[in-house]
Amino acid sequence: MSKRIAILGSTGSIGCNALEVIAHLGADYRAVALSARRRTDLLLQQVKTHEPAAVTIAENGSDDECCAEIRRLGTRIYKGVDGLVEMVQRDDVDLVLAAIVGAAGLPAVLAAVDAGKTLALANKEALVVAGSLVIPEARKRNVAVLPVDSEHSAIFQAMQSGRKSEIRKVILTASGGPFLNASKADIANATVEQALNHPTWRMGNKVTIDSATLFNKGLELIEACWLFDLPPSMVQVVVHPESVIHSMVEFVDGSVIAQLSPPDMRTPIQYALTYPERRAGISRRMDWTSKFSFNFQPPDLDRFPALALAYEVAERGGTLGAVMNAANEVAVEAFVAGKIRFGRIPEVVRGTIERHRVQTHPSLDDLVEADRWARQEAESAIAGARVAG
Amino acid sequence: MSKRIAILGSTGSIGCNALEVIAHLGADYRAVALSARRRTDLLLQQVKTHEPAAVTIAENGSDDECCAEIRRLGTRIYKGVDGLVEMVQRDDVDLVLAAIVGAAGLPAVLAAVDAGKTLALANKEALVVAGSLVIPEARKRNVAVLPVDSEHSAIFQAMQSGRKSEIRKVILTASGGPFLNASKADIANATVEQALNHPTWRMGNKVTIDSATLFNKGLELIEACWLFDLPPSMVQVVVHPESVIHSMVEFVDGSVIAQLSPPDMRTPIQYALTYPERRAGISRRMDWTSKFSFNFQPPDLDRFPALALAYEVAERGGTLGAVMNAANEVAVEAFVAGKIRFGRIPEVVRGTIERHRVQTHPSLDDLVEADRWARQEAESAIAGARVAG
Repeated sequence: MSKRIAILGSTGSIGCNALEVIAHLGADYRAVALSARRRTDLLLQQVKTHEPAAVTIAENGSDDECCAEIRRLGTRIYKGVDGLVEMVQRDDVDLVLAAIVGAAGLPAVLAAVDAGKTLALANKEALVVAGSLVIPEARKRNVAVLPVDSEHSAIFQAMQSGRKSEIRKVILTASGGPFLNASKADIANATVEQALNHPTWRMGNKVTIDSATLFNKGLELIEACWLFDLPPSMVQVVVHPESVIHSMVEFVDGSVIAQLSPPDMRTPIQYALTYPERRAGISRRMDWTSKFSFNFQPPDLDRFPALALAYEVAERGGTLGAVMNAANEVAVEAFVAGKIRFGRIPEVVRGTIERHRVQTHPSLDDLVEADRWARQEAESAIAGARVAG
Repeated sequence: MSKRIAILGSTGSIGCNALEVIAHLGADYRAVALSARRRTDLLLQQVKTHEPAAVTIAENGSDDECCAEIRRLGTRIYKGVDGLVEMVQRDDVDLVLAAIVGAAGLPAVLAAVDAGKTLALANKEALVVAGSLVIPEARKRNVAVLPVDSEHSAIFQAMQSGRKSEIRKVILTASGGPFLNASKADIANATVEQALNHPTWRMGNKVTIDSATLFNKGLELIEACWLFDLPPSMVQVVVHPESVIHSMVEFVDGSVIAQLSPPDMRTPIQYALTYPERRAGISRRMDWTSKFSFNFQPPDLDRFPALALAYEVAERGGTLGAVMNAANEVAVEAFVAGKIRFGRIPEVVRGTIERHRVQTHPSLDDLVEADRWARQEAESAIAGARVAG
């Protein structure tokens, strides 16, 4: 089956990997639309290689020489969030790979679902913030929402070995990040360099810091609940430092089905693009002729309070996903900028959540407002001057 | 769905576990027919609990007091191999669980397939000896052959995450047995007690000795080739001492799907009985709150020549499966009886195979004759007086 793909966030880590996969898959798969926030130089390169019909530059800025050259190559340029929304709805797009980090990708994700496009979701914030809008809408329009995160792809693959009603729980594996064995005091004062030194995955900065706090696992927990229609009590986080078993499903009979592969984003990206087929992959394979071990241990919620916070947010729902996500984005930026200690990240988020008045059935406007409020609140907390909510 | 089950070998290890599972599953599952080789006392107990319509006592002997009581309870008694064949074809049998160790169960397995009964196969010898008869016949009659061995059940479950044509290879896990880390010299001179001391599974004597030589894994390799229509080159054995990952399927995209559960035969037995459903199980579950490791290493074909032998037999086919199986049964019996050293078991089997003139498309008579010839040949080799073939 031939698929025409729009990649939102094509210059990011997931986007670049997706383009590699598409090039590998051959003529049946084409990248017909790309988007970048502001890296027009890399976008131009991608346009030269993949010859998409359209691109979006999401951050409105002055038109530079790269933009001019993209136009000369015959590729239409859209601008800003509105341009992104317009681009995903194009008739020549079959599948939208949403790989924009943070809440910025949300309007385009909703537009893709509205337009009936198959959604491959690498933007976990879309569901963390607005799962209550995206998922019911996707169900109503019978739009497939395919996971791209390695963990959710693993769960999705493992679920095929039984029926939904036969699932007892999902085991979401976590590498544990760079501070798996660090003391609470060392974690509190970790440097940016330490936090960016992920043991198994090479990813963007935001998600790498989130992996160090375990907020990333918390976001994935909430994402899993939305994607697979599960209560948080049915999702158990287990630390597996090797990041080879990407997650598991335990069925009622006691059988556990796991998906494993060497840590490489191209494997789950490709599965989302080719599903329900599997095609020959380009990633490194498991080497069964070597000697190796997989280790497992429960997560330590005391040293990693972000995870306990995420369970609480997952249970309570409403606007809290948006608030947690926004406060965390602000706190991570502040940490990377050297404004707060590493240990302050979950504190800032908890403080923001505690000061929030939860709305249980939010509209998109409510979510946008909750996001705005949480960012302001978190920034004030970081600045040391809390503004009354 | 309600299922009426015949258990061939109900007094053995698999049979007893199957009866526990059936009792646990409740009214939808009934053991309507049982069989024992000669343990009429245990068979009587099972008749009292499960009230089957029929039993077979497979070894013709004098009718004892237990037989008399079984009859008084209203259960029909069949006798001998012919009785077993007659019993599996009864109209009140939906599914035949074949759990007789060795080649003795073969005629009943073929009769079950002929009668169109769903076959749950714990008797791996049926396929090792006569896969070339059983599998084509099952395909012709559209009879499902469901695996009961934990490894094959795992492969079967993992296969559901993709298409047959998308399988790159099957990874058959092996505990490595009690001599995993023993030297060649220590293995050669191992005692019966040492060989029966399996690290993870509690099973019958024959299969436990086979686990120590790795002949069991060799039989499973051949069984996997037949069950899943795979060439031996697509089945890779990997040692996993914890016996928790029961086997895996690697797909062309690099994704590996694994099935895991604490070592307990009741889990795969139940899956074979309830397939395509899963029901709540009685086995111990994985404990995700504890700290644990899984280890993997390639098998050592030098210390465990049985495995290399099995690959050769799997490739060459014909009557060789029957010959390997028969020679191994004789050699294991001789080892348990103290007649030969442990290290002689694979030597006796290799010698018998080397002296055999392979028939490539054997009939059942050819297989029976190959079995008879191999037993005689192996016995002569053990007695030290090789008879010309």
